[in-house]
Amino acid sequence: MSIKIDFNNMMSENIPQGITDAELTKTAAIANKAKAAVDSSRGLNMLGWTELPYNQTAVVKDINEYVKQIEDFCEYFVVLGIGGSALGAVALYNALKHTYYNELPKAKRKHPRFYCIDDADPERLNALFDIIEPQKTVFNVITKSGATSETMSQYLIVSDYLEQKLGANASKHIVATTSENSGNLIKIAKEKGYKTFFIPSSVGGRFSVLSPVGLLPAAAIGIDIAALLNGAKDMDRICQNSDFKNNPALICATLMYLAYQNGANISVMMPYSYGLKTVSDWYCQLWGESLGKAVNRLGEKINVGQTPVKALGVTDQHSQIQLYVEGPSDKVVTFIRVEKFRSEVTIPNGCEAYPDVNFLCGHSLGELTNVEQAATEYALKKAGKMNYTITLNTIDEYNLGSLLYFFQMQTAYIGEFFNINAYNQPGVEEGKNAAYALLGRHGYENKASEISQSGKDIKYIIEI
Amino acid sequence: MSIKIDFNNMMSENIPQGITDAELTKTAAIANKAKAAVDSSRGLNMLGWTELPYNQTAVVKDINEYVKQIEDFCEYFVVLGIGGSALGAVALYNALKHTYYNELPKAKRKHPRFYCIDDADPERLNALFDIIEPQKTVFNVITKSGATSETMSQYLIVSDYLEQKLGANASKHIVATTSENSGNLIKIAKEKGYKTFFIPSSVGGRFSVLSPVGLLPAAAIGIDIAALLNGAKDMDRICQNSDFKNNPALICATLMYLAYQNGANISVMMPYSYGLKTVSDWYCQLWGESLGKAVNRLGEKINVGQTPVKALGVTDQHSQIQLYVEGPSDKVVTFIRVEKFRSEVTIPNGCEAYPDVNFLCGHSLGELTNVEQAATEYALKKAGKMNYTITLNTIDEYNLGSLLYFFQMQTAYIGEFFNINAYNQPGVEEGKNAAYALLGRHGYENKASEISQSGKDIKYIIEI
Repeated sequence: MSIKIDFNNMMSENIPQGITDAELTKTAAIANKAKAAVDSSRGLNMLGWTELPYNQTAVVKDINEYVKQIEDFCEYFVVLGIGGSALGAVALYNALKHTYYNELPKAKRKHPRFYCIDDADPERLNALFDIIEPQKTVFNVITKSGATSETMSQYLIVSDYLEQKLGANASKHIVATTSENSGNLIKIAKEKGYKTFFIPSSVGGRFSVLSPVGLLPAAAIGIDIAALLNGAKDMDRICQNSDFKNNPALICATLMYLAYQNGANISVMMPYSYGLKTVSDWYCQLWGESLGKAVNRLGEKINVGQTPVKALGVTDQHSQIQLYVEGPSDKVVTFIRVEKFRSEVTIPNGCEAYPDVNFLCGHSLGELTNVEQAATEYALKKAGKMNYTITLNTIDEYNLGSLLYFFQMQTAYIGEFFNINAYNQPGVEEGKNAAYALLGRHGYENKASEISQSGKDIKYIIEI
Repeated sequence: MSIKIDFNNMMSENIPQGITDAELTKTAAIANKAKAAVDSSRGLNMLGWTELPYNQTAVVKDINEYVKQIEDFCEYFVVLGIGGSALGAVALYNALKHTYYNELPKAKRKHPRFYCIDDADPERLNALFDIIEPQKTVFNVITKSGATSETMSQYLIVSDYLEQKLGANASKHIVATTSENSGNLIKIAKEKGYKTFFIPSSVGGRFSVLSPVGLLPAAAIGIDIAALLNGAKDMDRICQNSDFKNNPALICATLMYLAYQNGANISVMMPYSYGLKTVSDWYCQLWGESLGKAVNRLGEKINVGQTPVKALGVTDQHSQIQLYVEGPSDKVVTFIRVEKFRSEVTIPNGCEAYPDVNFLCGHSLGELTNVEQAATEYALKKAGKMNYTITLNTIDEYNLGSLLYFFQMQTAYIGEFFNINAYNQPGVEEGKNAAYALLGRHGYENKASEISQSGKDIKYIIEI
């Protein structure tokens, strides 16, 4: 493995508002307690994700065999899922495949085109139907409960569409990833004869990227899923280091916890690689939904949670860096830097007459990107803004598996610091119930009447 | 026009921490002063954007004629630009074209495929070269100064590529959008004989979407740019209303100003439409770079700025809503709701045996999307979290022109509330200079030695 974490710019030696070495040392006890709590829960309750790098030999084999089976007809692989059932697969796709993968000719692409529909926008689903050919498409319906409104709506539309187009053949164009023994989708799958993959009951959506939720779509487009799991496994071993300054996820959880206590209510994830852009989306769910909690385990009202923000280097230097440098000291910027790009371009000569362009010539784009990362890191430091940098030597399956697992472990640890349940999401219930009521679902009449009594004052509405 | 703004959930009647009617009334004087300040600067200094809806008849004609000229050979239209030279065009493309536009066959697409390379990632630019055909491509190089490192690097690479592939014909495959009378790119364009369009000196990058910066790429892919400008014009007229409660941009600026003073240092932009997803990116630059300022006009150190966050409905209900509902009261969520989608799908029957899915049947996806928006709005309100909703009747050129102009005007107003210069970006200079130094640019030797003296302590680095 080659992963490097530099947190000099979190520390008071470099950042006036930063963390002192004494604070860090003082926090070691809490950090060790957090690690012990995670260690003792491995594989239990909702910590099934810690075992995924170890217990999936048969799953990987099953996935790879299934992918081989559909290879002869599948030209379009479509994920129907939302949140944790979508973001992992999308992150893997963007990080590990060609930027314009879907537009490559078959000979270069080798595997099916990839799509993920993670909302209920009718324009988007209709647009998908415009470009796919049903007889060459596999829809991967992903929902653990089989009761996710958006995904089950998509499922109903898609199964009807396939049955109209393909009749009795429809069932081989749907593969379900769901709970093995509860919920609707497993029952429907059995009735209809769909191929199924299972989400362990101890693995929640935002920790499921290394389960069949992320692995099946990844394998379908030619990603080496065994290598992904190997990277995760090695990171897991490294995170078992009980010296907290040499346990990357534990030290980073500690830094973020201390920064949050010092007023950093925003976590910016800023990779300097276009391929890692949607890793930030995946991180935003992991961090936001795990840590955004009203109460701690003692039932005390704490309304805690750092808001994750995605940014992209160098792009957002021309959008967000002005704010990050000059605005309030309310954020930590996490840079991700890639030492070696998978392909390069050198900037040729051609601007000799223009000194403020000519100095670029002879450098490569990868060099420019990394220099800009270092320069932005330096500018933030000079402005007294906290940041730290994770460096990968390159982007591949192994390193990506490591990186994703690292963030999961960091999240688990920091949840312990706050003494919260990082694995539930009780705050989404109110909105779900309100939606059921507004759709006229039986049993939600009281909620419907509660909503209808919540009037709006027309003086606070402008209509033009 | 049909645009509605409902800010009931910003007010103390609905939200305990909200704004009182008395506060709003008290702020009218500041709001009126902000409006007067913007009014008196229209068209002056960096407020050229207020005149773009009125003064571009000839520009629109020139753009549409140019687009007609390239029509016979152009199959790929590529924007090379970054920040304000990219985000507007991308927002227009995603909002107004088919979700999978580039994958449609020519007969349905009618116009060239569209790409925008807004970074310096070598993998991404190489990927573009894999899928385009140079003889069928037009590159639109966009930089006002002609000194933007990323864009000029791209330009050098692309012009070299075109000259190698097409020889003397290369120049008709580049069109430059830049300053008419200063900077490098206008000089290069004249030497090489490129077609040019001009960015008025009084229009800054993040306010340039309705100048040729956004209009040319939009027109190239068949967007009706006159209708965009008409929408902006009508919004501009509406924003001249001096009754601040009936001036949508002024009331929204007031609300956001008061919310920021009350501790909301985060502005979440959350459209419930996949097409509007990148309008949020455009907004994030506008809001972040305009308002993130270290000093006010009096030179007082204020380090002000609300951090913009993009979210997408319904997608992020399964990612961010847990945090927004249960986390700290540190944000305002701006919903954008679309009353009528441009296409629809009805959820068919097929789950009669499963009551927690069956209630969805018979509803349309558009209805589901909008019910979820209303339900989320309601859940946030119940949790005491500030939010307001902008409703468009549908997405088209006219309404999008209105919406973008509305946000520009809101930004200009709130800049006056903070008494800051909303049009500069002094905070990016340090990073630019550091990058020059690290690339060995002549004249930056002192900066280079400053950086090299800024050592890193190895005890704050983990390498594995």
